[in-house]
Amino acid sequence: MAFSFKVIKKDSTTQARLGRLVTAHGAVETPAFMPVGTQGSVKAVSPRELEETGCQMILANTYHLYLRPGVEVIRELGGLHRFMGWKRPILTDSGGFQLFSLGSLKKITEEGAHFQSHLDGSSHFFTPERVVEIQEELGADIAMVLDECIPYPESPGYVKASTERTLRWAERSLKARRRDDQGLFGIVQGGVDPELRRRSAGETAALPFDGFAVGGLGIGEEEKAFHAIGEFSAGLLPEDRPRYLMGVGRPEDLVFGVSCGYDLFDCVVPTRNARNGTLFTSRGKVSIKRSEFARDPRPLDEACDCYGCRNFSRAYLRHLYVAGEILAAQLNTLHNLHFYHRLMERLRDAIREEKSGVRLLEAEFGSGISNHN
Amino acid sequence: MAFSFKVIKKDSTTQARLGRLVTAHGAVETPAFMPVGTQGSVKAVSPRELEETGCQMILANTYHLYLRPGVEVIRELGGLHRFMGWKRPILTDSGGFQLFSLGSLKKITEEGAHFQSHLDGSSHFFTPERVVEIQEELGADIAMVLDECIPYPESPGYVKASTERTLRWAERSLKARRRDDQGLFGIVQGGVDPELRRRSAGETAALPFDGFAVGGLGIGEEEKAFHAIGEFSAGLLPEDRPRYLMGVGRPEDLVFGVSCGYDLFDCVVPTRNARNGTLFTSRGKVSIKRSEFARDPRPLDEACDCYGCRNFSRAYLRHLYVAGEILAAQLNTLHNLHFYHRLMERLRDAIREEKSGVRLLEAEFGSGISNHN
Repeated sequence: MAFSFKVIKKDSTTQARLGRLVTAHGAVETPAFMPVGTQGSVKAVSPRELEETGCQMILANTYHLYLRPGVEVIRELGGLHRFMGWKRPILTDSGGFQLFSLGSLKKITEEGAHFQSHLDGSSHFFTPERVVEIQEELGADIAMVLDECIPYPESPGYVKASTERTLRWAERSLKARRRDDQGLFGIVQGGVDPELRRRSAGETAALPFDGFAVGGLGIGEEEKAFHAIGEFSAGLLPEDRPRYLMGVGRPEDLVFGVSCGYDLFDCVVPTRNARNGTLFTSRGKVSIKRSEFARDPRPLDEACDCYGCRNFSRAYLRHLYVAGEILAAQLNTLHNLHFYHRLMERLRDAIREEKSGVRLLEAEFGSGISNHN
Repeated sequence: MAFSFKVIKKDSTTQARLGRLVTAHGAVETPAFMPVGTQGSVKAVSPRELEETGCQMILANTYHLYLRPGVEVIRELGGLHRFMGWKRPILTDSGGFQLFSLGSLKKITEEGAHFQSHLDGSSHFFTPERVVEIQEELGADIAMVLDECIPYPESPGYVKASTERTLRWAERSLKARRRDDQGLFGIVQGGVDPELRRRSAGETAALPFDGFAVGGLGIGEEEKAFHAIGEFSAGLLPEDRPRYLMGVGRPEDLVFGVSCGYDLFDCVVPTRNARNGTLFTSRGKVSIKRSEFARDPRPLDEACDCYGCRNFSRAYLRHLYVAGEILAAQLNTLHNLHFYHRLMERLRDAIREEKSGVRLLEAEFGSGISNHN
């Protein structure tokens, strides 16, 4: 079994933990953020540039890769790592969130999820077993069970039925497992109902998963509910296994999540925002297209040492963005990922150094966590 | 005067020459190809990647930079090199070819060219003097005189009148010159009329320019006329100054041009083709989207050692292109520029080694040059 996880140190003033995840493709220091490589590429950056940003692990989307180029192609070419030229760990999602995004193009039954491809309308069927099989064929280091990401808002009856079905799917997923060099994570659902969340967490945690994810958050519920459920759910999960807060988030959400005791995160925010010209800096979020930058000779962020900040002015970055140059997407993505990975590094250092550093980062990012103890 | 040019060696079987161009931003071994950085960025590659492809010098477009971000902005930010983070030499064109492309949005008089911006329709006026001044403000290492690129076909009367006007503009350009750390090149026009070409070359070459360009070729005339005029014009230019075949071209055109005795080339072909999925390889031109590549594990070109060919399969490159990933444009551009610069290196080596190497390259690329001696 190539997969292992160890908590190295717990923070003294929050629930944050410093950990080490070991996979068949190397180790990951946690807490860690995974950029999203939807179609087998983190948009606008090459693998060597990703490594340069400090990226330890990426997420790839099973739904997208299954449809194009197809699982068989990737398997034939030696698996996803070799296919995309990324040598470090990969987590693949289960497609649950993509099915959620398909809306009326999918239909969920006890057996699995019927859906139509967003590419060509062709019909497909994902079962918990098939989804484990696909991820084993892709060769992910961490695979996720098929779950239903419950829309918000939804009727209490449906939330309950769906949460229970996701639990049954979790058991089926474990039985379908064939590879022992891959971690398999269960997913906690339950909407914004604390009682259902408690049941989902308890019953999922009773199963022999290698780690646990909390899903269905950050999809339209109020910030308060997101914080309450996010914090509450982390506390229900086993201490000795990695905890993954799925699809989250903004820098302040990462500080919040680490504070709650989560170890892994993924989100399109840094990469998508980069392509839209929204950049994260030590002075906050910046829209690079603003005319105030037109003649600004300073680097985007004087506190940043990414390739862009070392070599180009705000004026040039603004020009590239306004002129629609591809290089804008490249430099902006490099910068935002550098910012995210640097933030995770600061969080890890804060836990390691035991000087209320996580609390200081909460204050810096306005994460609004009052008390975790 | 920072600008100098020296012919180091002449080929024994063609008119090709090996040379060394020295500018305020370093030396360029010629023959050399200049990728096009229209808006202050060679599309889809960063300066460090450009250097990695073996790029010695780039071309930037005066027309585009004048309109956006504006010459004053670039001057304020320390000139074009610093603005775009490119430390090696830059040649700026005069805008003549962009005006040609504007069609009915421009009007040419004896004084200069009135035109409307393709961005916002605003009215502008370029004179030979203003165009020299703009390029001096941009801080190019080589500036080009304002010329009229004559449409093809055009009436003999217009071709003659335009060619004569470009000659008068050349004299005005020289008088407008203020910087002595920048080379200024004259441009030979004359359409496809050998007599006018001879007159244009003779009268331009009589002026104290640092180098000479041949323009108005590759714009719709027949291949035969292109070859005839291209070869003929090179022979009319002084041996001791650099010769630049503007806007050319495909790999076979570069071999042809070198064979004729040209030293500098620029073209959007490698970069634009890359973005359209057309790649140059040692086996010829390849359209990466073809389904035959869907499961092909081999590198695009086994003879190539660019980042893409060292790390990715044809199957992956095809997937990126079909999926519309930005990384497709990045890797494809890196590859095509690598191919172009490697071709120029082979041509330089061929001249240096004196083993009929240029003739062998003509045969390999089917350049169809029968005899230059």
